[in-house]
Amino acid sequence: MDILRRIVESNRFKNFITAVIALNAVILGFETSSTVMEKAGTILHFLDQVAVAIFVIELLMKLAVYRLAFFKRAWNVFDFTIVAITLLPAGQGLSVLRALRILRAFRLISTVPSMRKVVEALMRAIPGMVSVLTLLSLVFYVSAVMATKLFGQGFPEWFGNIGASLYSLFQIMTLESWSMGIVRPVMESYPLAWLFFVPFILVTTFAVLNLFIAIVVDAMSSHVDVEEKQTRDEIELDHREIMQELRALRQEMSKLSSAQNAVNPQQDSARN
Amino acid sequence: MDILRRIVESNRFKNFITAVIALNAVILGFETSSTVMEKAGTILHFLDQVAVAIFVIELLMKLAVYRLAFFKRAWNVFDFTIVAITLLPAGQGLSVLRALRILRAFRLISTVPSMRKVVEALMRAIPGMVSVLTLLSLVFYVSAVMATKLFGQGFPEWFGNIGASLYSLFQIMTLESWSMGIVRPVMESYPLAWLFFVPFILVTTFAVLNLFIAIVVDAMSSHVDVEEKQTRDEIELDHREIMQELRALRQEMSKLSSAQNAVNPQQDSARN
Amino acid sequence: MDILRRIVESNRFKNFITAVIALNAVILGFETSSTVMEKAGTILHFLDQVAVAIFVIELLMKLAVYRLAFFKRAWNVFDFTIVAITLLPAGQGLSVLRALRILRAFRLISTVPSMRKVVEALMRAIPGMVSVLTLLSLVFYVSAVMATKLFGQGFPEWFGNIGASLYSLFQIMTLESWSMGIVRPVMESYPLAWLFFVPFILVTTFAVLNLFIAIVVDAMSSHVDVEEKQTRDEIELDHREIMQELRALRQEMSKLSSAQNAVNPQQDSARN
Amino acid sequence: MDILRRIVESNRFKNFITAVIALNAVILGFETSSTVMEKAGTILHFLDQVAVAIFVIELLMKLAVYRLAFFKRAWNVFDFTIVAITLLPAGQGLSVLRALRILRAFRLISTVPSMRKVVEALMRAIPGMVSVLTLLSLVFYVSAVMATKLFGQGFPEWFGNIGASLYSLFQIMTLESWSMGIVRPVMESYPLAWLFFVPFILVTTFAVLNLFIAIVVDAMSSHVDVEEKQTRDEIELDHREIMQELRALRQEMSKLSSAQNAVNPQQDSARN
Repeated sequence: MDILRRIVESNRFKNFITAVIALNAVILGFETSSTVMEKAGTILHFLDQVAVAIFVIELLMKLAVYRLAFFKRAWNVFDFTIVAITLLPAGQGLSVLRALRILRAFRLISTVPSMRKVVEALMRAIPGMVSVLTLLSLVFYVSAVMATKLFGQGFPEWFGNIGASLYSLFQIMTLESWSMGIVRPVMESYPLAWLFFVPFILVTTFAVLNLFIAIVVDAMSSHVDVEEKQTRDEIELDHREIMQELRALRQEMSKLSSAQNAVNPQQDSARN
Repeated sequence: MDILRRIVESNRFKNFITAVIALNAVILGFETSSTVMEKAGTILHFLDQVAVAIFVIELLMKLAVYRLAFFKRAWNVFDFTIVAITLLPAGQGLSVLRALRILRAFRLISTVPSMRKVVEALMRAIPGMVSVLTLLSLVFYVSAVMATKLFGQGFPEWFGNIGASLYSLFQIMTLESWSMGIVRPVMESYPLAWLFFVPFILVTTFAVLNLFIAIVVDAMSSHVDVEEKQTRDEIELDHREIMQELRALRQEMSKLSSAQNAVNPQQDSARN
Repeated sequence: MDILRRIVESNRFKNFITAVIALNAVILGFETSSTVMEKAGTILHFLDQVAVAIFVIELLMKLAVYRLAFFKRAWNVFDFTIVAITLLPAGQGLSVLRALRILRAFRLISTVPSMRKVVEALMRAIPGMVSVLTLLSLVFYVSAVMATKLFGQGFPEWFGNIGASLYSLFQIMTLESWSMGIVRPVMESYPLAWLFFVPFILVTTFAVLNLFIAIVVDAMSSHVDVEEKQTRDEIELDHREIMQELRALRQEMSKLSSAQNAVNPQQDSARN
Repeated sequence: MDILRRIVESNRFKNFITAVIALNAVILGFETSSTVMEKAGTILHFLDQVAVAIFVIELLMKLAVYRLAFFKRAWNVFDFTIVAITLLPAGQGLSVLRALRILRAFRLISTVPSMRKVVEALMRAIPGMVSVLTLLSLVFYVSAVMATKLFGQGFPEWFGNIGASLYSLFQIMTLESWSMGIVRPVMESYPLAWLFFVPFILVTTFAVLNLFIAIVVDAMSSHVDVEEKQTRDEIELDHREIMQELRALRQEMSKLSSAQNAVNPQQDSARN
């Protein structure tokens, strides 16, 4: 078990797995070309099977080493889920599941440290966005219900049910063909439809932009905080050093003063 | 009245109202599906009536407790307005008013504290935007009058009157189909139309972006101010402590000096 | 002349002019409606003439008071130009010039102080953008020449000459219908056209975004500078006060020391 | 050789080259107009040849002066590459290569210092973007393979092969006609296609915006660092000055103290 752990944690093993992931991604890319598939389909398919086997063995090794602790690290769960998902098509042959095999390439994110850091940085921005996203979801839900009720009968393709409305509203929020494609045709039947759509655009755009403004301000604020903290620490340190020196001075002064007093005590007591 | 106040202000009551709002939102969502309505329309409608009754009772209770002071808090006015608006359809049966009932779901914003905070934060950004928004309104009004005069006869659908022009200009500002959809067709009749539209896009886009830049800069600035204030306060405090110590030292020094003087006064007076 | 100056500079006069500008803007807005024009066209036209007369008198008064110094202030030149431009249609009756009369409403920017401040703030952002705008112009010119040469013959409407190319490239930079509307049709004739358009989009979008990033960073930087300057000024002031106190202390110490020396000079000279 | 170096490095020579580049850009602009070409085609072509000759001579002079060291500076390589590329058409006459001649105008970037600074500033933003760009490339590759597998047969024009998919996904990322143009038609065949495209839009838009957020935050952070560094340096300097003064004071105090001791040693030793 100890040898297994040393293998699993060695850089050579990690680099090997990274190389297999990259090669597998290239192979799955080639599989999209029918001319390549005609010539080398069997080989590509075999190599893909080999890659899958390597991934399964890798996971089994890690599971053997870390046991249930394996699932405590989020990136391990990520790797496990991706390999699990991409194992499904082998058995079922559904074209959608076959297409999901390329998701294995995302394992590069967990194996290449620089990629992992970027994703972790992006993820850190999410908690600060939760409250605005919740608000945005509420706005979307309310707007979708309203749009379905108001325009559902006239424009079933766009607002026929809540799902269709949500999709159309997402499209409108991205400003794609919102006017020429959707709102102008709707206004031909409901001339006041702009009273619904223009505020929707203003509110959602404003909310989304505030989402990103919040990320900028958060990132900057924490940087400023760190810098100011450092400045204040230096001020604190300097201050302590000065105070120490001053107190030493004062002590010496007191000593001097009492020495003086001892020489001419009457004088001093007369003064006080 | 005191019992009523305790009920109205209890967390259990607040959570109950929040739950009713959420359930009511779900019910109104189901009402958009005709298949669901066929099967359970009566029940859904009854539950909606129950929810309305609960909201009305809630407001009456609050009005009884707080009386006119109730209207002093903006969120109460918000709640009251929404319930008032959504009461209208019951009497009139207009489909638009029926669609407005889902607005009740927005009461979640006032009952869920985290949502309320987000909306309040978004609202705080608005005062800083007023002056740019006023300028933007002026640009829109002037541009709409010009567009109506210039292109109104040729393209009545887009620029037939000030309202149509304002809508079209808003669409152009969002860059949706501005060229292929509007300006290129207009340029076929008025080849120099780009002299109007391109500057309009540049000015409004620049203004809108400055709106958001202002929010970022404001938020950051106030953060920097708080931090710098704290640093300066620490400097101030440290400074005072040092000065106090120094003054104490000097006083002791003076005392020592005058004691010295008292011992050999001739000497000292001879020196001065 | 002194009375005229007092009138021209009085708040009552300024408010009167502001009111006339606003009313004139409303009148010109009404003129876009043919139904209103049928009923009250003569009155509206008369009121417009009155407004023009007031503006001309206002400018003449100001010219009489300030003479050539009038043109030294940019906002005066702005007012003068707008009134001059909007006087033209009266003589010539060209519909375009008639449409320009609404530009008078922009005089609100110079008469309302809060609007003036916003425009001045927006203007201040421009100098920092000049260098990037110059680069952007160069990129546009080079791209327009290339597009004209490459796609001009195949797509004369979009790239027939440099002007058409510049407009199309501006449209592409705003991302409006760039692919479905322009690049995909072009790629049917020139399959490698994306090699020209995709880099163009990346470069110009990147440049434009850097323009706005520069504004944010500039605004923030100058705020941070002001704050840090204030902190450093306080540090400087505190430092001087402490040093002054310390020097006073040291002086007194010297005095004490030499007094001591005077008492027992042999002792001291023996020590040194 | 020394004379050549002085010529090459003189401002007059640099200005002359800049002027030739600008004039050449104007000439190539005129060449796009067929009416101008009919009238003055021969002259324009001749002037272009002259400009090319000047550029070649300029480069030969610089190569003679700096030899291989010439290629150590990136801007020289830039100049050399552009002149080399734009020399090709003269021999081959391909219309694409002829169109590339206008790229010479980009040499203004290397010869005009202010332009050079802007480009260098834009370039400096790139290293900080590499990691997010790598992630974005991975997302694009994986999405392109998936889109090709899923929608390639149904929509060969958009997703027929990886290249077509990459282009379509880039279009979708820019939000151009993503819904009306592509996803809605695709959804008619594959109703769940939005499960692929909406997350793709969310992820790539989020990543791209973080790219720009990173630039803002980096630029601001380095500014704050510089300012805080300056503040801390001042604090450090002030602190040293105060400590020096305090130590001098203490030394004098010790001297005074020991002088006192020397006067009445018994007294002092008795106290200790």
